[in-house]
Amino acid sequence: MSKVPMKMSDVLIAHRRIAPYIQKTPLLKSDWLSDCIFRDVYIKLENMQVTGSFKYRGALNALLWGKDNHISKVFTASAGNHGLGLAQAASELHSDVTVCIPITASALKKQKLKSYSLSVIEHGQDYDTTESFARRLALEKKGTYISPYNNAEVIAGQGTIALELLEALPSLSMIVVAVGGGGLISGIATVAKAINPDIRVIGVVAANSPAMIASINAGRLVQTHCEPTLADGIWGNIEEGSITFPMAKENVDDWIAVEEEDIRGTIFDFLDNEGMLIEGSAAAAVAAISKKMIHPRPNEKIAVVVCGGNIARADWREIVHQHLIGKTRLL
Amino acid sequence: MSKVPMKMSDVLIAHRRIAPYIQKTPLLKSDWLSDCIFRDVYIKLENMQVTGSFKYRGALNALLWGKDNHISKVFTASAGNHGLGLAQAASELHSDVTVCIPITASALKKQKLKSYSLSVIEHGQDYDTTESFARRLALEKKGTYISPYNNAEVIAGQGTIALELLEALPSLSMIVVAVGGGGLISGIATVAKAINPDIRVIGVVAANSPAMIASINAGRLVQTHCEPTLADGIWGNIEEGSITFPMAKENVDDWIAVEEEDIRGTIFDFLDNEGMLIEGSAAAAVAAISKKMIHPRPNEKIAVVVCGGNIARADWREIVHQHLIGKTRLL
Repeated sequence: MSKVPMKMSDVLIAHRRIAPYIQKTPLLKSDWLSDCIFRDVYIKLENMQVTGSFKYRGALNALLWGKDNHISKVFTASAGNHGLGLAQAASELHSDVTVCIPITASALKKQKLKSYSLSVIEHGQDYDTTESFARRLALEKKGTYISPYNNAEVIAGQGTIALELLEALPSLSMIVVAVGGGGLISGIATVAKAINPDIRVIGVVAANSPAMIASINAGRLVQTHCEPTLADGIWGNIEEGSITFPMAKENVDDWIAVEEEDIRGTIFDFLDNEGMLIEGSAAAAVAAISKKMIHPRPNEKIAVVVCGGNIARADWREIVHQHLIGKTRLL
Repeated sequence: MSKVPMKMSDVLIAHRRIAPYIQKTPLLKSDWLSDCIFRDVYIKLENMQVTGSFKYRGALNALLWGKDNHISKVFTASAGNHGLGLAQAASELHSDVTVCIPITASALKKQKLKSYSLSVIEHGQDYDTTESFARRLALEKKGTYISPYNNAEVIAGQGTIALELLEALPSLSMIVVAVGGGGLISGIATVAKAINPDIRVIGVVAANSPAMIASINAGRLVQTHCEPTLADGIWGNIEEGSITFPMAKENVDDWIAVEEEDIRGTIFDFLDNEGMLIEGSAAAAVAAISKKMIHPRPNEKIAVVVCGGNIARADWREIVHQHLIGKTRLL
């Protein structure tokens, strides 16, 4: 796959490619978030996407692109939503996909991946080792490595979210997006700016894993120290030369870092107000609104991408339990 | 509004009428429910519908029909999802709607209705008194009374769910639907049988409020004693002469009554497995699957209508709290 930045036309192609497979997810007005900041706020529910995460869009587009280009073997490194998205896409398309995961990945994640009929290889103590291994394997086996974010087809797939947003709500003026490696925001910002350059795109990172903000501030990709975060979907550093960095640098208008406590609280608040469990990375984006961290203009119409719902059972139970016993009265 | 039974063509008209306003709600495969009964089970997420309930479809269709037929004033009696649906539809269509509610309705429901710019009249200690009052008011003011279920346009609106189901999944062989007054199942069964008479439609009532099952068993509409139920959306008796009774009698293949304990447990299980809070009536339909109360054929493809997500905060908190502290280990 080439390292040229992705274009709007790539997203239009992706849109047509993946439409028969994906959920066109709901875009709902959130009374709760609208009341928080006195603006119209809409939630784009990618937690309702197949596999419970937007990552299915990009994974599917990359595999379909691969089919069109006679690529027969695909490799990736991911125990998370990208791996799950590729696994689901592989089972839909009967593609030959190998997912490499760290041996330290949680039992639940391993089990979920292994429920698909595809190759899962456990290798390495940490993600970096696993990734190097997967890349080497791809080279050796004459296959193609598909990065979770540093890949034009993956980014184009994620960009289809913005097409759906602006089709449903052409007067949208702000989009709030969680950022890890930057695949999601690169796709969304490219589409949003192509359709209407006045739309502001806001990137949200977990304060514990601020690689993209640090890089934007430095003007070049830099490595940061990453603490663990509930928002594990946006954890980690960004690989050298990633095409997402120049795209995010050019098209993202503002950046916000959200602390763990706010991510945690927002997981409970979203359940309490919207009736859904969401994962930490989605809660980070929502927290930017519910914790009043954005600066909306008058009459702003805002969409928040609720990027996924795959939160570990132990995590949500612990958060909800703590909130419920923390109240003096339950009812 | 006439008392002639609703036809498939009415649903097609409703479908076109309401499409610009409603959410085409997601239909997702549920791995959890599929594993429960070793069949493919899909969930139709009307909890994602505008107002959080399928009732918006019927209310909207009735109001749009009213506009087409130069009906200027509409009255109803409902403090629940039908009232909410009409309120939302009225604000979309700038219609003159009066919603009558019992003075005993919960503060939250009153507040929710009053947040819309429409007339809300509190009258009567119980629903029957409120309904008689609303009907009398409609007569006096030369308006039209719209029943939550005994109304051809309302039923046609609910029937659009079956169109969406069978468009997405033409090989569906069973549909499981919660039943109170029977508006939802009448609409869905009419469409399902018209498209494919082999599709089995299963009606689910709350054991504490079994009016429809008792009537089906008696061969005529009968009044039953109704105990309170968490599934308040399907609570109560069915009015004399309701057009839903002959429709349900003709088109529903089997009936199931679900106990409170199973409704309660299923609210937790749905949250735990699907990440969403649903209301008791939706949980009743889901429980028919998760508690293995249906008798599927080999290779059956089943859809459960998750009819709404409007559960009182106190109810879900109490249920979840009890489940979490009931476990010896939280994590």
